[in-house]
Amino acid sequence: MLRLTRRSVLNTAKSFHPNARRGMASSFFPDEPKGPSMKTSVPGPASKAIMDRMNKFQDTRSVFFIADFAKSKGNYIVDADGNTLLDVFAQIASIPLGYNSPAFLELTNKPAFQTALANRAALGVNPTEDWVDSVQNAFMKVAPKGMSNVFTVMCGSCANENAFKTAFMYQAAKRRGDKDFSLDELHSCMKNQAPGSPDMSILSFGQGFHGRLFGSLAATSSKALHKIDIPAFDWPRAPFPALKYPLDQNKEHNRAIEKASIEAVDLLLQNKTRPVAAVIVEPIQSEGGDNHASPEYFRNLQAVCKAHDVLFIVDEVQTGVGASGTFWAHEAWNLPTAPDMVTFSKKFQAAGFYLHPRLRPSQPYRLYNTWMGDPVRAMQAVAIVNEIENKDLLSNVKQVGDYLQKKLKSMADRKLLSDVRGQGALIAFDLETPAKRDKFLIDMRQRGVNIGGCGERTVRLRPMLTFQPHHADILLDTMEATLTS
Amino acid sequence: MLRLTRRSVLNTAKSFHPNARRGMASSFFPDEPKGPSMKTSVPGPASKAIMDRMNKFQDTRSVFFIADFAKSKGNYIVDADGNTLLDVFAQIASIPLGYNSPAFLELTNKPAFQTALANRAALGVNPTEDWVDSVQNAFMKVAPKGMSNVFTVMCGSCANENAFKTAFMYQAAKRRGDKDFSLDELHSCMKNQAPGSPDMSILSFGQGFHGRLFGSLAATSSKALHKIDIPAFDWPRAPFPALKYPLDQNKEHNRAIEKASIEAVDLLLQNKTRPVAAVIVEPIQSEGGDNHASPEYFRNLQAVCKAHDVLFIVDEVQTGVGASGTFWAHEAWNLPTAPDMVTFSKKFQAAGFYLHPRLRPSQPYRLYNTWMGDPVRAMQAVAIVNEIENKDLLSNVKQVGDYLQKKLKSMADRKLLSDVRGQGALIAFDLETPAKRDKFLIDMRQRGVNIGGCGERTVRLRPMLTFQPHHADILLDTMEATLTS
Repeated sequence: MLRLTRRSVLNTAKSFHPNARRGMASSFFPDEPKGPSMKTSVPGPASKAIMDRMNKFQDTRSVFFIADFAKSKGNYIVDADGNTLLDVFAQIASIPLGYNSPAFLELTNKPAFQTALANRAALGVNPTEDWVDSVQNAFMKVAPKGMSNVFTVMCGSCANENAFKTAFMYQAAKRRGDKDFSLDELHSCMKNQAPGSPDMSILSFGQGFHGRLFGSLAATSSKALHKIDIPAFDWPRAPFPALKYPLDQNKEHNRAIEKASIEAVDLLLQNKTRPVAAVIVEPIQSEGGDNHASPEYFRNLQAVCKAHDVLFIVDEVQTGVGASGTFWAHEAWNLPTAPDMVTFSKKFQAAGFYLHPRLRPSQPYRLYNTWMGDPVRAMQAVAIVNEIENKDLLSNVKQVGDYLQKKLKSMADRKLLSDVRGQGALIAFDLETPAKRDKFLIDMRQRGVNIGGCGERTVRLRPMLTFQPHHADILLDTMEATLTS
Repeated sequence: MLRLTRRSVLNTAKSFHPNARRGMASSFFPDEPKGPSMKTSVPGPASKAIMDRMNKFQDTRSVFFIADFAKSKGNYIVDADGNTLLDVFAQIASIPLGYNSPAFLELTNKPAFQTALANRAALGVNPTEDWVDSVQNAFMKVAPKGMSNVFTVMCGSCANENAFKTAFMYQAAKRRGDKDFSLDELHSCMKNQAPGSPDMSILSFGQGFHGRLFGSLAATSSKALHKIDIPAFDWPRAPFPALKYPLDQNKEHNRAIEKASIEAVDLLLQNKTRPVAAVIVEPIQSEGGDNHASPEYFRNLQAVCKAHDVLFIVDEVQTGVGASGTFWAHEAWNLPTAPDMVTFSKKFQAAGFYLHPRLRPSQPYRLYNTWMGDPVRAMQAVAIVNEIENKDLLSNVKQVGDYLQKKLKSMADRKLLSDVRGQGALIAFDLETPAKRDKFLIDMRQRGVNIGGCGERTVRLRPMLTFQPHHADILLDTMEATLTS
């Protein structure tokens, strides 16, 4: 109720100048800065001095600025020069609860958390009782309906690759039936040859991004620079529907290209020489340009996978954990049954994937590695799940997402930007050219908003779950000033 | 001096019964248990009850027992049933300083550590000043001579795969010369096709283990069960010399097979249709059976790589961080120049690889991912480096390693076991058959020693850096009792 009242106040505020509403207090961080505050350009001299030091050891060409996390708070990141920026990039969409969340800080003083930190378990050998608690209270509490198993790893790419392995083992077991591994299979796999190393594939989509390791990169086609010079499996790619905006003026076109995409998938799944074990798709193609498709499209995609008994993997590494307004973005699709696997990382701090128990490999040690996840990050995942519930952060995301989308659409009407699309607070829009987009991101940072791009000329918003309408107003005001200057 | 005195006392103690010397105090953990103490079989009823709970969500077939890390101390792990076991498996060789190391526990209360925990950085975008300090005080302080750059990731497989990517980019850039990417390369890589996705390879060795993701698994040939049913790159494999023991009685044979291995590598590096970008090798093939080779062999291997301008990657994921008696196991080889890349994980808590600055890709974002390592684990790595130095743990490892190898060789003379080999405390021996080895591991656990195997019939010792001669005596006594019962 409080939030609704505030929103209506904001909606009626007509005065425009950057950061006009910096007086608003956050519902989640009483002591959050009231707005951006800039002392130098970004990166400033202090950031640059540290980047120079760092550059002796590590490539710093991708660094925006040096963060001072001790001073950052809530939705605001503070840099080494003392600049305070509203952060809608949030460590590449991976901060869930805001900087220095009290829930995370409390956790650091808990003996069980400190024990987990000081004694890193090999979870396949010596899990602790704590671990089972974390699995139950984090991953299982928010498991997509009908999914009761989870395999945890260290990062999003590893999550996807282990899901791929699971799919390959499932399809091979199905083909093999009740038989044991053959001697030929056992010997040939040691030489990386068929039949032990089978010529099967993962089907992904144009512009999809699933990671940067050798399996996940073969399923990725976000940008040539991510892939060039790296050997790849010759795995197939289907076209992802390129929706036209605004949606209500392009219904026929969008229906047609979604249908064409499903037909292309259907055709590719008929390949018998290099059978497809699984299809992987992002609910919103994030690195590839924030490309959306309709819930109906995804239901049809699942159906065509089922028709071919090909597994359906939903990659929620960037879209999961609340930012879409539901815990998992794919909840919006109303699938008749759960996906076969759902992968996660980023905002959950812990990485892994959900799977059906029927997908457990027949033998132990086939899905396995040294750490098999991190109990420390799983304890943080418990805290995230609790905070989302206790603070009703999903409602907050829905509310701010609706508000922001509406406001951005009115900026699109005024031709300041185009192609506004979003699900909850996973929102994006396009600028005219890649150069204009790149300049916009840098200009916004100079004005106190840390923001990121994706695709060719897209700006993506990846705020934390604690982002509220008064933050949105600061973002919108700063955008307005930047785009009209 | 104290340690030397203790050792000589131990050497002269003739009485034999399990855990005879449990009265000894650890130099590193004054309040460490004095010996194993068993209340139930392992896994006991409490472990089993928790495993039953866990099995609903996760495969528990590989679990030895449920750990109670709050009660574990130093070289001793305590389980959910209150059993206290001497641990020479140490979370698959990944505990450096003993359970509940004061250095790690102190760290958990430091504000900077807590800040890093509560605010997970995307290190390619927003590193902190702390991060640069960690890089300097952990990774750089112990960098192999001549290596000044490090790329950090989340696990050992990721470390190896990013090293592979670096090698492929380096070789492609060399071939390309001053030219830009061609349009053909830029387009073809998006379809996973040559020339953009080139048909290059990584050469590894039979029985080698480099990880379980798609690139690292293609370079792995430890066991068929690790590889079967998973598509693989058709990358080549050279035979690793199978040394015969004792070394001093098999000099000629060993020299000949090492020479044959180098010749095989030389031949494989001449492949022009699928050029080799890099050779990867473990100083001790760990998962594959603790296979060693001579320093001269590794010097020749580096030389043959240099002759073909193929990069030389040393995988120190399991051997690094002190357990060999030097910080990196490859220091024992006295290479004329540093390897091109050295990968690490496990005992360092942080994962990544060292590389020469000349191997930095020409463009940013080509070696990149969301987190690019974990500042929390890097702070622990600083503590590890400091503890190794302050407590002179390398001397401790050398001392206990020599002692243990000598004692095991005398057991080999009595035919209780065979093929004792070791470097520092990375020690292994064989039992007669896989079945006898498997039974031995289980029996040892029932008698209070947590111990692991590798290869077909090998027992590998992977104690922590705080393992001392009086712990070795408990291990040896328990082995004697187990093998003669």
